[in-house]
Amino acid sequence: MPDIWSVYLSGEIHTNWRQEIAEGAAAKGLPVRFSAPVTDHPASDDCGVTILGAEDQKFWHDRKGAQLNAIRTSTLLKEADIVVVRFGDKYKQWNAAFDAGYAAALGKPLIINHGPDIVHPLKEVDAAALAVAETPAQIVEILDYVINGRLAGYTDQA
Amino acid sequence: MPDIWSVYLSGEIHTNWRQEIAEGAAAKGLPVRFSAPVTDHPASDDCGVTILGAEDQKFWHDRKGAQLNAIRTSTLLKEADIVVVRFGDKYKQWNAAFDAGYAAALGKPLIINHGPDIVHPLKEVDAAALAVAETPAQIVEILDYVINGRLAGYTDQA
Amino acid sequence: MPDIWSVYLSGEIHTNWRQEIAEGAAAKGLPVRFSAPVTDHPASDDCGVTILGAEDQKFWHDRKGAQLNAIRTSTLLKEADIVVVRFGDKYKQWNAAFDAGYAAALGKPLIINHGPDIVHPLKEVDAAALAVAETPAQIVEILDYVINGRLAGYTDQA
Amino acid sequence: MPDIWSVYLSGEIHTNWRQEIAEGAAAKGLPVRFSAPVTDHPASDDCGVTILGAEDQKFWHDRKGAQLNAIRTSTLLKEADIVVVRFGDKYKQWNAAFDAGYAAALGKPLIINHGPDIVHPLKEVDAAALAVAETPAQIVEILDYVINGRLAGYTDQA
Amino acid sequence: MPDIWSVYLSGEIHTNWRQEIAEGAAAKGLPVRFSAPVTDHPASDDCGVTILGAEDQKFWHDRKGAQLNAIRTSTLLKEADIVVVRFGDKYKQWNAAFDAGYAAALGKPLIINHGPDIVHPLKEVDAAALAVAETPAQIVEILDYVINGRLAGYTDQA
Amino acid sequence: MPDIWSVYLSGEIHTNWRQEIAEGAAAKGLPVRFSAPVTDHPASDDCGVTILGAEDQKFWHDRKGAQLNAIRTSTLLKEADIVVVRFGDKYKQWNAAFDAGYAAALGKPLIINHGPDIVHPLKEVDAAALAVAETPAQIVEILDYVINGRLAGYTDQA
Amino acid sequence: MPDIWSVYLSGEIHTNWRQEIAEGAAAKGLPVRFSAPVTDHPASDDCGVTILGAEDQKFWHDRKGAQLNAIRTSTLLKEADIVVVRFGDKYKQWNAAFDAGYAAALGKPLIINHGPDIVHPLKEVDAAALAVAETPAQIVEILDYVINGRLAGYTDQA
Amino acid sequence: MPDIWSVYLSGEIHTNWRQEIAEGAAAKGLPVRFSAPVTDHPASDDCGVTILGAEDQKFWHDRKGAQLNAIRTSTLLKEADIVVVRFGDKYKQWNAAFDAGYAAALGKPLIINHGPDIVHPLKEVDAAALAVAETPAQIVEILDYVINGRLAGYTDQA
Repeated sequence: MPDIWSVYLSGEIHTNWRQEIAEGAAAKGLPVRFSAPVTDHPASDDCGVTILGAEDQKFWHDRKGAQLNAIRTSTLLKEADIVVVRFGDKYKQWNAAFDAGYAAALGKPLIINHGPDIVHPLKEVDAAALAVAETPAQIVEILDYVINGRLAGYTDQA
Repeated sequence: MPDIWSVYLSGEIHTNWRQEIAEGAAAKGLPVRFSAPVTDHPASDDCGVTILGAEDQKFWHDRKGAQLNAIRTSTLLKEADIVVVRFGDKYKQWNAAFDAGYAAALGKPLIINHGPDIVHPLKEVDAAALAVAETPAQIVEILDYVINGRLAGYTDQA
Repeated sequence: MPDIWSVYLSGEIHTNWRQEIAEGAAAKGLPVRFSAPVTDHPASDDCGVTILGAEDQKFWHDRKGAQLNAIRTSTLLKEADIVVVRFGDKYKQWNAAFDAGYAAALGKPLIINHGPDIVHPLKEVDAAALAVAETPAQIVEILDYVINGRLAGYTDQA
Repeated sequence: MPDIWSVYLSGEIHTNWRQEIAEGAAAKGLPVRFSAPVTDHPASDDCGVTILGAEDQKFWHDRKGAQLNAIRTSTLLKEADIVVVRFGDKYKQWNAAFDAGYAAALGKPLIINHGPDIVHPLKEVDAAALAVAETPAQIVEILDYVINGRLAGYTDQA
Repeated sequence: MPDIWSVYLSGEIHTNWRQEIAEGAAAKGLPVRFSAPVTDHPASDDCGVTILGAEDQKFWHDRKGAQLNAIRTSTLLKEADIVVVRFGDKYKQWNAAFDAGYAAALGKPLIINHGPDIVHPLKEVDAAALAVAETPAQIVEILDYVINGRLAGYTDQA
Repeated sequence: MPDIWSVYLSGEIHTNWRQEIAEGAAAKGLPVRFSAPVTDHPASDDCGVTILGAEDQKFWHDRKGAQLNAIRTSTLLKEADIVVVRFGDKYKQWNAAFDAGYAAALGKPLIINHGPDIVHPLKEVDAAALAVAETPAQIVEILDYVINGRLAGYTDQA
Repeated sequence: MPDIWSVYLSGEIHTNWRQEIAEGAAAKGLPVRFSAPVTDHPASDDCGVTILGAEDQKFWHDRKGAQLNAIRTSTLLKEADIVVVRFGDKYKQWNAAFDAGYAAALGKPLIINHGPDIVHPLKEVDAAALAVAETPAQIVEILDYVINGRLAGYTDQA
Repeated sequence: MPDIWSVYLSGEIHTNWRQEIAEGAAAKGLPVRFSAPVTDHPASDDCGVTILGAEDQKFWHDRKGAQLNAIRTSTLLKEADIVVVRFGDKYKQWNAAFDAGYAAALGKPLIINHGPDIVHPLKEVDAAALAVAETPAQIVEILDYVINGRLAGYTDQA
């Protein structure tokens, strides 16, 4: 068993779900190291041109940034023990679905997190997952069970 | 060089872009075998419950179907020489982005096809591609160039 | 798409389920090549000692045979596009579960076939599958859908 | 040589064999880190619905739990240096055989542990193993020999 | 199941064992394609310097030849379904043991062929094999059983 | 043994060495299928912008073309049995060295072809090769030996 | 996320760019471990013959050294999280392009560093990279962004 | 660069070459962790039957032991950064050649150590190696160069 489980938190960047999970895991003392894409949206969009020089065309502006971000995200996806991908209720979020497919092809255990309203369009993504959770709190419980075997009401006395 | 190149056409199912590519490739006599997901939308949604029995909950109805479809799509993605993924201007299309990520992790050459209006939300997907085309006709030209080395205005006399 | 899909039929050897599937597939004209372990039980048990010399101990008698059979089964599992594993209602059938785990680790699309009475002990095996069927006829329908996109009541007119 | 050898103990959960091995290894001071599936049977059965919500159908109840357990077990199987699988004399234990097949396909050194009465039905599983032991004490001796090269009566003076 | 099984015959080059196997397989009509290293000993030794220029030092003379031979042997080992390695009673035959190790690391089903007098020095090689045969005739029987399921005295009536 | 050996001819595009090899192989009746990058230099440079639209900056002009070419070259490198890379006496030819590194990492048997004047700067590339030839004629002889075991003066009577 | 990111600095050995990057990374406190080929040019050329004995022919002198260096470089390339390859304005530098191809085939995130004057001959190499930088300082900024998410003017207040 | 390089010392067990290398490496302060097969010959021969029970037949006596040893050796070969294989002037040593082939197929950097009298029979093994050394002292020098870049007479002042 890994001393520390590496968990990559991909997807939605407009709520504080990563912090909720981190706090929940800390409260339970879970041996987990979380990682994530760069979640500062403007930095994520502009990193390429800021470091490597401006582009006239939006397409190459985006390309430069997206490829810098891929250095980080592909590394983190490959070294993760577990990949969590959250879909919010707004935006296209194609990068989240891309990460889910990438993780699936690598054979990573995949946990998908989203609300009940988008079950249908996410059915192919969910079908590749080992768990589909609605809330960050459920993900913390999953990690506690998977890592420690703790399940409320069952193993409390253990 | 493969005798026949295997090209998987993933993504959008509401226009006849697959047919355009197939006809264009046939007109040029390209040695290509195309494959695709099941593109009959109701069949694709209901295949699981139709064959394996009804479900009360939409979630499992979808899961059953999506997993049957995954038998087909994962096989085709793995055996493809080239993967093309098209994004239309409607719907979530998370399965298309999932396929793109899956193909990228497998190291497949990836061609993405979409209109100029969705360049920004697709930037991570495009960044993993070896070509980003706007039209099916361009994809036929790419295949002709990649396979035969033919490029209008350059190699016509060859 | 493969010209011919290779489907390995692992597991139970005391009913004619393989023949049912083969006949069903032939009736639909499916482009499928089936393979299977050696299903002649006495030959399968004794092949090692018959060819390579007798053993005093049952353990080595069995080992010799099981390893000869593994030449066949590991080759077939590796070259299969789809792996089907059927569990009957008798015997330990640990070789069937072993094959399912082997196929899962190779990333093969897995279809499990068994009756409703053994759902619980097979839950870990089923959880690795993309389809869980109760009858050979369902497996034929799955293959027809997966390969040809045909689904009764949906794509009949197509 | 790994500083600490990672050994996954799969299979039978109704005797204290894991504890016997752990105590034996501790007594010899072996540099081993053991891991195991969740061995609290009710928790293992119900984890999915407890965390992610109840299911009406037993099949999905089981699926949800088995897939949560698979997050743990697939991770542990992949990171193990050695995989031990024990078969008891009761129950179907298809998950144990599944784990053995999974480990074999990953190329993990496999040690199988079972009594002499089930040699025949386990012959395919045993044939994939590098050792077949009857007792937990033998497994401790194997680990001591494999890791430290210690063998009673041979290397005691070394 | 492969239409044609590819079987690589590595090792001893001073008897006609390859011909015996080929004739035996032909007599049974087995769907097998055999391959082998270059078995003309002087050509095998001198191919490098003959084609690419003479060397003063024996070491480089040998290196040049051995690397040319490796183009052939590594390709054949990788594409084989089954690898057979025969050890004779003379010479060092380290290339045969090297091929056996190479095949084992690739996960190829391995059949070792040698006489009873060299059981002990070959124990590590044999331990990696799925069959240890004493004669070419046994190898033909193994192939017939593995491919066709035919076993004399058992399946003759089938 | 492959029925047809697939040989990728990478590198220098300003002499007719590919034709020499193809003619030599045809004269000997070798069962070889050659493939190559697009060798029409202007087409290779401009393919990206010709098909996908002009670019103001040379950098992106080049990127678009190089990525289209990579669809072809990465596919051919992956499916090749043998990779030949020729370095001429002019130009940087970094793409040739890149292909050699790519092939080496894939474990492909590598034949390097260049004149004696550039032995030193190519030493790392040569060190990864199984043969270093000075002329196309030698490469034909290598293929004849590797595939057919024919070596002038040795196996002529065979 | 790795505690320490492993970054391999391949290529040009005649300027102090590695030191610039190391100093820049140290100044920012980046959790990075850099590695590199042996950059003492005479030692790198002569290591083989110095340790293993002299050679009359330059070709084998070079081969012996290049293969010793490959023990180091292939190990470092395989264990790197990120591979940086710099091309200077002099020399053939085929080893640098070879390393880039090797890293690309391994799926390593690749950063290429070179001046604007050699954009065209490096187009195939650049096309495989996730970033093309002109200066070592940019590489430090990339590492800071990729690892820490820090981007000047964007995340300074975070 | 690994903090500690893992080096597996396979082969000959009748001289103290492993100790010579270990002492040489310690004298230079090399960051190396050596591993080896069990080198106590009687223990290595009898481990299987001692732990798992006696066998009447020498073949199975040997098999049991060889498979226990394989748990150790296959693990060590897989986790090694560098594999060294030494051939003495006595015995068959097929296990050494087997290990060399195994390591070669895994893509491990291979150093072969033997005297000049057995150059010819080892030519295929040597051809797969990145260095062929005659003495343990040379291997220590290789490790010092590969890891630290130190080469006597060249980098002493560095």
